[in-house]
Amino acid sequence: MEQARGERARTVAESAQDHVDGERLRRAIAQLAAFGGREDGGVSRQTLTDIDLQARRHLVERARALGCEVRIDEAANLYFRRPGEQDLPPVLTGSHVDTQPVGGKLDGAYGVLAGLELVEALNDAKVRTARPVEVVCWTNEEGSRFGPGCMGSSAFVDPARLPAYRAAVDGDQVTFGEALDRALQQMADVPRRAMKQPLAGFVELHIEQGPVLERAGVALGVVTGIQSVRWYAVKARGVAAHAGTTPMEVRADAMAACIEVAHRLQAEAAKAAGSGLRLTLGRWVVSPNSINTIPGEVEFTVDARCVDEQVLARFDAGLRTIVAGHAWRGRMELQPLFARAPTRFPQAMLDVMAQACQRASRIAGKPSPIELTSGAFHDAMYLADHCPTAMIFVPSKDGLSHNAAEETAHEDLVLGARALAHAVGWLASA
Amino acid sequence: MEQARGERARTVAESAQDHVDGERLRRAIAQLAAFGGREDGGVSRQTLTDIDLQARRHLVERARALGCEVRIDEAANLYFRRPGEQDLPPVLTGSHVDTQPVGGKLDGAYGVLAGLELVEALNDAKVRTARPVEVVCWTNEEGSRFGPGCMGSSAFVDPARLPAYRAAVDGDQVTFGEALDRALQQMADVPRRAMKQPLAGFVELHIEQGPVLERAGVALGVVTGIQSVRWYAVKARGVAAHAGTTPMEVRADAMAACIEVAHRLQAEAAKAAGSGLRLTLGRWVVSPNSINTIPGEVEFTVDARCVDEQVLARFDAGLRTIVAGHAWRGRMELQPLFARAPTRFPQAMLDVMAQACQRASRIAGKPSPIELTSGAFHDAMYLADHCPTAMIFVPSKDGLSHNAAEETAHEDLVLGARALAHAVGWLASA
Repeated sequence: MEQARGERARTVAESAQDHVDGERLRRAIAQLAAFGGREDGGVSRQTLTDIDLQARRHLVERARALGCEVRIDEAANLYFRRPGEQDLPPVLTGSHVDTQPVGGKLDGAYGVLAGLELVEALNDAKVRTARPVEVVCWTNEEGSRFGPGCMGSSAFVDPARLPAYRAAVDGDQVTFGEALDRALQQMADVPRRAMKQPLAGFVELHIEQGPVLERAGVALGVVTGIQSVRWYAVKARGVAAHAGTTPMEVRADAMAACIEVAHRLQAEAAKAAGSGLRLTLGRWVVSPNSINTIPGEVEFTVDARCVDEQVLARFDAGLRTIVAGHAWRGRMELQPLFARAPTRFPQAMLDVMAQACQRASRIAGKPSPIELTSGAFHDAMYLADHCPTAMIFVPSKDGLSHNAAEETAHEDLVLGARALAHAVGWLASA
Repeated sequence: MEQARGERARTVAESAQDHVDGERLRRAIAQLAAFGGREDGGVSRQTLTDIDLQARRHLVERARALGCEVRIDEAANLYFRRPGEQDLPPVLTGSHVDTQPVGGKLDGAYGVLAGLELVEALNDAKVRTARPVEVVCWTNEEGSRFGPGCMGSSAFVDPARLPAYRAAVDGDQVTFGEALDRALQQMADVPRRAMKQPLAGFVELHIEQGPVLERAGVALGVVTGIQSVRWYAVKARGVAAHAGTTPMEVRADAMAACIEVAHRLQAEAAKAAGSGLRLTLGRWVVSPNSINTIPGEVEFTVDARCVDEQVLARFDAGLRTIVAGHAWRGRMELQPLFARAPTRFPQAMLDVMAQACQRASRIAGKPSPIELTSGAFHDAMYLADHCPTAMIFVPSKDGLSHNAAEETAHEDLVLGARALAHAVGWLASA
């Protein structure tokens, strides 16, 4: 019985993988990229804007044409279901189709479209899976129009998060709740379903958004987990004064104090080289920001990430000591903004991904997949709190993302879709 | 003959000084502050705005009421002339009445109003000076609406500067030329006169805008000169990339590079402590300025000042070495924006100021005046290229300026006006 199930899973997985159609995938990516497409090759399709709603409608119509049951939940997450032989918890795959203000055509969209390609491949192969296979399109992964990101997936996992998300406002003072109700109204023909449904597993295929696979010369990566992250704001309050008339010894220069602190943080990061610590001081607000006025107030952000939570804990302690111990004529404070422990995907899921990637690589005559961790957040980070989860990465040219120049060789995109088809086919049948 | 002239100069100077009316000065300051006055006590009266034109009209009417001949030049500088016994080059005093977007009621305005108070004092004393006495109101000293600052005074000294100034635009794309023509049109009743006229001397009374006099507990300062200044922009171009996915060793983080450079500049300034070097890194533009994106481009400004030109020359050499020598995966460049050698006022003028300040202080029972240098630019900096020039400072509370909280004790303002009356009375008669 056990052996028969394994044999069937292999058959389904290989059949799905072999029926993936690279040209069909290429067309699907180009079609979706037309929604918000830019002359520079980028895509501007922020969550729940008119263009995003049109893109979602396009996906709904395509899924229906493929015979899928389409459902929507309170967070406007869309589910495209290919029924299984039994009404068991489904295997879910997918990602998001919203973009940064200026993004590329692959970040998120690739995972959704590879999911629909998998449905087409299963259809073409005329196989039925034991469990249903569902493709999901999560709402507001990017977090650029309404913060935080990953609203749809995190609300799916814990619906109690949704009321607070609904109150988030965009730059035009539209609330996420208003934008959501408009999207649900526009999808009134799509039956509603509950969030937090049981799932047999979740697999997300995504571009790496970093340089690791490209540098390794490998097309497929099995993601072992998502690194830990801590965000902070450092705020310094001094006294704005005339740059010409104020002697150095009486100044309370907020920027001078922050440069001192930032320099020490960079030294800490340099000491930790080899530990995998990544430190970014990305956003700076200097007031009054005038060439001949001593900065009176400065705020900057600290983004620290590592696969090793202990490294981050040591960095956190160092940061607190540096900020608290800074001796200057003013005040400085540290405000923690966000923290997330590392996500580790289960070994059993990694084995399924590895097997799927290995076969796809071998048949294409490509180097074997490698394991890597994700530096970026993904919807899979939240799904991992809910069900067995895994991710597969394909390379990003020059490691670029959140950028119109985002790109991946099409043969690598096809390889990723083949690996996904194998992995999901296996999980839905084993 | 020489002795008789000296005796007469003393009589005129002391008579002018003694006829300064503190209450009249207080009223004049309050009246002018009503043009652009704010609830917080500050004044918003940027150059050649409607409110500035109304303030200028108020001054013209007051000057005419005092019997002055009013003239305007091509840069809309206003001159209020009290004739002398002979048609010799006049002694000029005054300052400006434009403010920063949010400024105080004294920066500039005090010097103009003390000049008009001097005219009233001479009238009350019924003395005639040998030379004419003129009070000037220079156009656009602040440089906040149209850059650079000191347009009116620097164009007076060198009219060839005016055509380039006329092309400067404000935030609404109005040119300085357009604003100037509107001001001249509105003053069509005021006879025109040429710029670059011969002057016997220029004396500017101003608030210190720094903490030196307050810390010394002294009400009057004889300004020996204006320190040297050099402005630069440092620009770094790296590569914007995802903070989570980009390993430290492949980054080209423009902010990390600039922090390194800024920290070294601060160390240079610390080494030069005692030399009088003042260093301000005041304006920072970070792109894309996002918490989770590695900064791709950063530009910051360097404002370096010193009374000792050699100290600045050494700093300049150090800055060039640091920027050129910075080893990182990107490009960094240094752009000089502005440089001005130190201004030294002539000893003969300093002697006249010292004598005027000493008598005013002695009669008021106040500590003797001290000498100091100006850290800020003033119209006097340009006039010094044209005629014997000097400045007198009164204290600024907490050293504050360019700020609604700008303040000076009224008794110190009266003392300053008395010193000015003595100095100008002397110069116009000796």
